[in-house]
Amino acid sequence: MQIALDAMGGDHGPQELIAGALLAADETDLAICLVGNETLLKKHLETISVKQSIASRIKVIHAPSVIGMDENPVDAIRKKKDSSIMVAFDLVKGGDASAVVSAGNSGATLAAAIRKLGRLKNVARPGLASIFPTLKGPVVIMDVGANVECRPVHLYQFGVMASGFSRLYKVDMPRVGLLTIGEESGKGNNLVKEAYALLKKSSLNFIGNIEGRDVFQGDVDVIVCDGFVGNICLKISEGLAEVAMRMLRDEIGKSTMAKIGYLLARPAFMKFRRRVDYAEYGGAPLLGIKGTGIICHGKSSAFAIKNALLEAMEMEKININEVITRDLLVEDVGLGGGV
Amino acid sequence: MQIALDAMGGDHGPQELIAGALLAADETDLAICLVGNETLLKKHLETISVKQSIASRIKVIHAPSVIGMDENPVDAIRKKKDSSIMVAFDLVKGGDASAVVSAGNSGATLAAAIRKLGRLKNVARPGLASIFPTLKGPVVIMDVGANVECRPVHLYQFGVMASGFSRLYKVDMPRVGLLTIGEESGKGNNLVKEAYALLKKSSLNFIGNIEGRDVFQGDVDVIVCDGFVGNICLKISEGLAEVAMRMLRDEIGKSTMAKIGYLLARPAFMKFRRRVDYAEYGGAPLLGIKGTGIICHGKSSAFAIKNALLEAMEMEKININEVITRDLLVEDVGLGGGV
Repeated sequence: MQIALDAMGGDHGPQELIAGALLAADETDLAICLVGNETLLKKHLETISVKQSIASRIKVIHAPSVIGMDENPVDAIRKKKDSSIMVAFDLVKGGDASAVVSAGNSGATLAAAIRKLGRLKNVARPGLASIFPTLKGPVVIMDVGANVECRPVHLYQFGVMASGFSRLYKVDMPRVGLLTIGEESGKGNNLVKEAYALLKKSSLNFIGNIEGRDVFQGDVDVIVCDGFVGNICLKISEGLAEVAMRMLRDEIGKSTMAKIGYLLARPAFMKFRRRVDYAEYGGAPLLGIKGTGIICHGKSSAFAIKNALLEAMEMEKININEVITRDLLVEDVGLGGGV
Repeated sequence: MQIALDAMGGDHGPQELIAGALLAADETDLAICLVGNETLLKKHLETISVKQSIASRIKVIHAPSVIGMDENPVDAIRKKKDSSIMVAFDLVKGGDASAVVSAGNSGATLAAAIRKLGRLKNVARPGLASIFPTLKGPVVIMDVGANVECRPVHLYQFGVMASGFSRLYKVDMPRVGLLTIGEESGKGNNLVKEAYALLKKSSLNFIGNIEGRDVFQGDVDVIVCDGFVGNICLKISEGLAEVAMRMLRDEIGKSTMAKIGYLLARPAFMKFRRRVDYAEYGGAPLLGIKGTGIICHGKSSAFAIKNALLEAMEMEKININEVITRDLLVEDVGLGGGV
């Protein structure tokens, strides 16, 4: 299986991305196309000594331009048809790659995917899912930013798509929860109230409303919400986890006794960090497009990139898009013409 | 100054609430009315030995019924006019108390406050604010659940009200941020885009959009959002903080070395806990009503109740409602008739 990696995106530059690709190729039999400035990428590759068995599976595909992190996504993909992200999706479109992984401009990646590959049959709105760690297993939350204004049917479809994706974690009958501000069915804004009715009559394993405090408890496998709410949840969780660790480190730094204590407890701390580290779960899968796309955090480490490549591979292995197309029984919820 | 405490609300029962009242009376010269079942409350009070100087400032006011945590707020306040929360607001209405503190059914507290006291002049929608700890000072976020569907003018007014409240923290020109999913002015849903324009032309110290990851950084004093988003943010933060501590404790529990380390670092842990403990900040102030109301978490400890009582006292001292009324220059943002 061959996967295209946008080798120009991300905050750490091509080195980190290449390192991630090499890790993934070492751990699996994946072939990886590094898409970007050929001269630059080849120069980086030359400085690294790699086993022949790995090197033979790493290819460089030239793309002369790059879409910057701050560029307007829609303008950028129109103007820069030869950018690394556009060329990466061209590879999927042409059948030369199965999936794209990118740590670049996420809006542009999303727009490029939809433009180049198109939506899956019956999918009203492709979206972005994210995987959160919980007290128990991981939970898939969708949408986390692709769709800011949603209609009830979109939330229902996010439930179907994210349920399909949760097969990656060997979840059998994924429990789907609707994120709102009260457990009873009448609680929430109008969007949520109408989505509740759709989810209720669907064939999903819908367990009802969940509240913010339930997100990390692990009693639900899939959480649906609109992309505005989902993105804020994602960012607030990342921000809080970071700030809490920093506050704790500050306090520990204030006394010698506490520092010694920290050193003794360090392995436990590291294990905890790993448990809550988003990089463990790879990137955010783009669901609902004719192909596979993974959007990584701009600050992704090589380790996170490796996991995203493995995630893309697993998504292909479980035939995620066939599952989604099969499960989207549109008539089930009376999806009108207004998709 | 006299404050009415709903002595029947909360998950821990009257004992905890009474303990909080006694702490507040010991620390300040506040007089506190305990509102609830007289026989029950007096029985509890008899079991505690209290200094005469404190006892003389604690009064019991009888209210025969209680609104349960799961009752429908609107129905409940209509049917139970003699409930502790309704009687508590009667005291404010009649001039016998300056404020109400309640750890009971928060929807009912909100509904009772609006019903009994009414809105402040020019306030379209009273709302609930919450205080989050950050890397720097506290940040006030509004609304956190009172107003699920909002219009742009409501968000602007939350900015005015929360800015007034932030005087409690000696903030001079409170920096107001609009919670959304991108820093640029065009980012967000329709509500946020329109609210941006209003905030921009208002006399508030509006610093622009902020994202979820900025919430805990402390670079903003006031965050405005609709009550749906705010409530989810509040609950997800509480949930994550709790789960993270539990995961860390689990990991530490797995090795003796880590346990010893934890014991040595314990004071630092406790200080960290105190820094992120919401109870430190009292309860959620209800802003925009003709009076002062504080809604506490159902599981509030005596310590949290004490802080909520002190918070109510401080709100009265800074004349929060005069500040809000003065600052709500309605014409400033072209508030139409459709409030």
